[in-house]
Amino acid sequence: MTVSPFDHPYLSGLLGDEEVAALFSAAAEIEAMLAFEVALAKAEVAEGIIPAAAARAIESTVRRFSPDIASLRKATARDGVVVPDLVRQLRAAVGEPHGRHVHFGATSQDVIDTGLMLRLARALPIFEDRLNGLIGYLVGLSVRFDGRQVMGHTRMQPAIPIAVADRLRSWWVPLERHVERLQDLTLEGLPVQFGGAAGTLEKLAGKGREVRATLAAELDLADTPQWQSQRGDLLELAGLLAAITGSLGKAGGDIALMADRGGEIALAGGGGSSAMPHKQNPVAAEMLVTLARFNAVQLGGMAQAMVHEQERSGAAWTLEWMILPQMVVACGASLRLADELFSSIEEFGTG
Amino acid sequence: MTVSPFDHPYLSGLLGDEEVAALFSAAAEIEAMLAFEVALAKAEVAEGIIPAAAARAIESTVRRFSPDIASLRKATARDGVVVPDLVRQLRAAVGEPHGRHVHFGATSQDVIDTGLMLRLARALPIFEDRLNGLIGYLVGLSVRFDGRQVMGHTRMQPAIPIAVADRLRSWWVPLERHVERLQDLTLEGLPVQFGGAAGTLEKLAGKGREVRATLAAELDLADTPQWQSQRGDLLELAGLLAAITGSLGKAGGDIALMADRGGEIALAGGGGSSAMPHKQNPVAAEMLVTLARFNAVQLGGMAQAMVHEQERSGAAWTLEWMILPQMVVACGASLRLADELFSSIEEFGTG
Amino acid sequence: MTVSPFDHPYLSGLLGDEEVAALFSAAAEIEAMLAFEVALAKAEVAEGIIPAAAARAIESTVRRFSPDIASLRKATARDGVVVPDLVRQLRAAVGEPHGRHVHFGATSQDVIDTGLMLRLARALPIFEDRLNGLIGYLVGLSVRFDGRQVMGHTRMQPAIPIAVADRLRSWWVPLERHVERLQDLTLEGLPVQFGGAAGTLEKLAGKGREVRATLAAELDLADTPQWQSQRGDLLELAGLLAAITGSLGKAGGDIALMADRGGEIALAGGGGSSAMPHKQNPVAAEMLVTLARFNAVQLGGMAQAMVHEQERSGAAWTLEWMILPQMVVACGASLRLADELFSSIEEFGTG
Amino acid sequence: MTVSPFDHPYLSGLLGDEEVAALFSAAAEIEAMLAFEVALAKAEVAEGIIPAAAARAIESTVRRFSPDIASLRKATARDGVVVPDLVRQLRAAVGEPHGRHVHFGATSQDVIDTGLMLRLARALPIFEDRLNGLIGYLVGLSVRFDGRQVMGHTRMQPAIPIAVADRLRSWWVPLERHVERLQDLTLEGLPVQFGGAAGTLEKLAGKGREVRATLAAELDLADTPQWQSQRGDLLELAGLLAAITGSLGKAGGDIALMADRGGEIALAGGGGSSAMPHKQNPVAAEMLVTLARFNAVQLGGMAQAMVHEQERSGAAWTLEWMILPQMVVACGASLRLADELFSSIEEFGTG
Repeated sequence: MTVSPFDHPYLSGLLGDEEVAALFSAAAEIEAMLAFEVALAKAEVAEGIIPAAAARAIESTVRRFSPDIASLRKATARDGVVVPDLVRQLRAAVGEPHGRHVHFGATSQDVIDTGLMLRLARALPIFEDRLNGLIGYLVGLSVRFDGRQVMGHTRMQPAIPIAVADRLRSWWVPLERHVERLQDLTLEGLPVQFGGAAGTLEKLAGKGREVRATLAAELDLADTPQWQSQRGDLLELAGLLAAITGSLGKAGGDIALMADRGGEIALAGGGGSSAMPHKQNPVAAEMLVTLARFNAVQLGGMAQAMVHEQERSGAAWTLEWMILPQMVVACGASLRLADELFSSIEEFGTG
Repeated sequence: MTVSPFDHPYLSGLLGDEEVAALFSAAAEIEAMLAFEVALAKAEVAEGIIPAAAARAIESTVRRFSPDIASLRKATARDGVVVPDLVRQLRAAVGEPHGRHVHFGATSQDVIDTGLMLRLARALPIFEDRLNGLIGYLVGLSVRFDGRQVMGHTRMQPAIPIAVADRLRSWWVPLERHVERLQDLTLEGLPVQFGGAAGTLEKLAGKGREVRATLAAELDLADTPQWQSQRGDLLELAGLLAAITGSLGKAGGDIALMADRGGEIALAGGGGSSAMPHKQNPVAAEMLVTLARFNAVQLGGMAQAMVHEQERSGAAWTLEWMILPQMVVACGASLRLADELFSSIEEFGTG
Repeated sequence: MTVSPFDHPYLSGLLGDEEVAALFSAAAEIEAMLAFEVALAKAEVAEGIIPAAAARAIESTVRRFSPDIASLRKATARDGVVVPDLVRQLRAAVGEPHGRHVHFGATSQDVIDTGLMLRLARALPIFEDRLNGLIGYLVGLSVRFDGRQVMGHTRMQPAIPIAVADRLRSWWVPLERHVERLQDLTLEGLPVQFGGAAGTLEKLAGKGREVRATLAAELDLADTPQWQSQRGDLLELAGLLAAITGSLGKAGGDIALMADRGGEIALAGGGGSSAMPHKQNPVAAEMLVTLARFNAVQLGGMAQAMVHEQERSGAAWTLEWMILPQMVVACGASLRLADELFSSIEEFGTG
Repeated sequence: MTVSPFDHPYLSGLLGDEEVAALFSAAAEIEAMLAFEVALAKAEVAEGIIPAAAARAIESTVRRFSPDIASLRKATARDGVVVPDLVRQLRAAVGEPHGRHVHFGATSQDVIDTGLMLRLARALPIFEDRLNGLIGYLVGLSVRFDGRQVMGHTRMQPAIPIAVADRLRSWWVPLERHVERLQDLTLEGLPVQFGGAAGTLEKLAGKGREVRATLAAELDLADTPQWQSQRGDLLELAGLLAAITGSLGKAGGDIALMADRGGEIALAGGGGSSAMPHKQNPVAAEMLVTLARFNAVQLGGMAQAMVHEQERSGAAWTLEWMILPQMVVACGASLRLADELFSSIEEFGTG
């Protein structure tokens, strides 16, 4: 199926991002969830909760474990979440006597939220790299076109001339701020999720904290108390994604305006038309605007998801699943398209 | 790739809808776009614009035409839209001398928007059927549980007892209104899109209206002047999708509240937990809320897309591609889940 | 206080609309709520539920009744709704023996929702008039500038020339559709709200329907079963408001683009700058875009409000109060600004 | 006019916040804008751009200056922004020879954005105080009800018992994070806005940076390069507002659910009904949900505003004016209502 452009055979080339979308393939999700189960087992060995042999069995089983997707699908439709069946399958694969030690004391949300953090942790450096690339490129453009001017426009009217560097700076400076925020996130580390059935790790006989700390260390995530119904940090991250696409949307919109007016910019390539052979449309510029507005819309949804009732809200939590991966891939696509767009600038400014 | 749950191997069983999503497969899209080209050719024959032999060649070519998806993907990334390359491939497949008559006087937007209308036209009766099924089932429940009461709740407090039928009526009556609106849409017919490069059908030598009328008739769509930059009718349809999921979200939310309180409702099945074996979660009820809030969020995006500049805005138009198919499938999923949920009601009300 | 521009001493001149905002003054709200109470009393007399003398007393009291706003404010903060205290004050003003007959069988939501419908019913013809005025004016412009052309732009690139009328038509045709929808609404009539405590009119001893019918007739609203938790029709109306501002936003955005490029449009007036004396900014054009995006955002909120739990959700219902009046006034402002903007067009097109 | 509840005579008692709304009165706005002009004059004296006597004249004029609001209103409707006329009036009030030195080198956006920062800088400590108050109170509740339990609920089903402190912790821990973010903002300081006509401070003969630094110091804002078209930091702040209301909305929703079920919570007071005398509605709890969803909706709008074209977009910028003050006041109201709600808890938990 190809309901979303990100998963579409030909639209994903325009609006998607293979590198980032790969983090959200079912395979990557499952891999991350299994990584949680292995790390949990190890952490529970360390605290004497399960036998070392159990952790070894779980780890070696996972290495060759290939879940029955049809069973996962059927169970997810019934349970609302994939983990109960994944765990059941894994337990069966581990077999006796160690199967019972899989997922001890954890709940589905621990697996899924942690799995998400594992994949987001891989997205952050990708975004940081690409942002740094864009910043560098724009600075380079400001050097290449040093001495030239563009007409500054305010309120949809020509205003006064500004240096090319002034316009480019308005595009790259926000990206520097986004890099800072990504670095802060990377430094703090994304939080492990580990709370058990209702957030109290009630099965871990008072060793919940220690297990969680070891679990986080195993996964290279930040050790933090469970946040099963506390979605504010996720909203903050979503806000950063919207900010990145928003800043690139501003740049894309500016380039589209310059391209429409003509005279101050020349772009290589450009999109063709089925009706007008002379057309060279600034497609990437327009797509940056689309992705900015798309992520702006989705950010409102992530904020709605903060109204997460009681110890776990299936309704609010599932809304995040529908939205956040799309925001992440939209951000990746935006970075990719910005790179293509800026790289296509052949002339910028006059004089 | 599986960035969106609708396209996801196991999440789509929970949140997707196979029947409706099939309308948005790449195959269905391409089929619809090719149907446009065939119908256009026929209409142009009728007005003496292209030779009858050309239309025959185009139609027979389409019947066996299988586009090169890799080429479509590459071109879409460059052109921002799949049609230029699809048309190029089709022209090549038709070959000489008739290839040049493919897509005469049309533009990409005509193909894509019309293709969308063709598929939406198939979705509407699916939705109408399912809504009628739900209405009938709820009316049946009101008969089955006639004489029973539920406690009415207002402002999150028990208020006064109401008849089971009163609560059920608040769920089914809105669905009747949605059926009316769907019937109106079906009666009016969804609009063909045919405007050419900049909406003026400039290539059709004054025969634009006639060709459009025949084209619409061929495709069983409503003949209407081009609406390339006028997206209000699409917003109206999106509003109906949000209203359907909203009404079902209200019902799902009510059932979830009854399930959480216990005592007035018994549901068969229910979702299991990886941590608490006693759990029977009203998953479908929660999912109805999720889908309602999801479509509510997306509706705001479709409204943003109304700010569609000049004769064609790539930025605004592409935003619709990112959003509308998801709203349609969310609506289908909502109808499917409501059917499962209502069917699972074993007991309702007391006394 | 002036938190919203609609209520702001100087921003409301830019973004507000006095005529429409007057419908949402506290005075207008209270007047409408009291109109409900008077009409209810009359309807209840007609069905023999209360004495005729009571209705006369209520009507004559209302004519001179001026509620204690400070008391209303205090009570609203406690009750979440103004009606309990308004009714208490009115009962006291009516005094004995008829005070007890005020608001018999009704609930706060009946008063507030009906009061909203009464005021929306006055807004619809205002919008229809203004839309017709705009349509007429744009048609007039197409006559005035007949023979001229503008460059059509697609995907932010010059495309092919189009007639001035073609561009203007893309602005006025959607408005015709909005007029149709307004006319349909006016023909159907906006619905009375009358359901009592939990929607069952339980106090009216089986005469609920008759009272409601007479009540609706008294108020010139459509007689329809209560819709206390069914907010779909309100969403449909909000959708129309967003569509109107969206269509006008498209026109405003087009004019802003033309003004920024120069050459094809000349506007009288224009906004000055504190920094650049040469500036004549197309302020009204930009404001149409702002209002379009504002209403697009708010539409998402009205859709969230459809998830209205049980017989009355204070949370969902109050969200409507925060949003819908703003959408209505934004729509009025948009119509006003469009009138100013179109009227300011001195030249349009070339050749 | 009272289109928005924040400005409404009786609804503002329920949904507004006097202390925070006062920051957004026209008087507070004007005061802040005039503070900018005075500080600018002083900074320009320090750099020898204007005579010291001019700054003294401007400062003493401002102390007694009362602008003609009718004139501001008329001009704002024409200019799209209040500053040109405010500056004109101030210049006239300062008179000769120093009037010409008012607002030298600045533009309207510098005045308005800086004025906004000045008032937001006063809101942040209010929010921090109130959050700390709430945190303390919730911690106190956890002590008061130590030893009691509440039934944990997951996916709208009873799950397992949890300690009262566990539930309360899920409410207060996010507030601690919000306090941290507010402290970070306060530490960094909100940014001055100073860029001149098109962001290049072209009139300041190379002394722009120095003047800006002094200006920032005068106003106790952070010295930072102009951000006229770079709205990401504002989006980050809006995200924090949405996060605060979101966290409080989660708590309110939880309390509403407990109140609806009964048994585990007793609240003092509660809202009355016009129809059902027995009702004690958890109004404040519901309002927290309303405000959370309201700010969630608005956050999407602030993200749309990031697509801010060229050197100044009237359309995007004005969208912020329509939205951000409302988010700030909604946040204040949420904090106020949370305080009332938590304070009204008489019993919490069982056992």
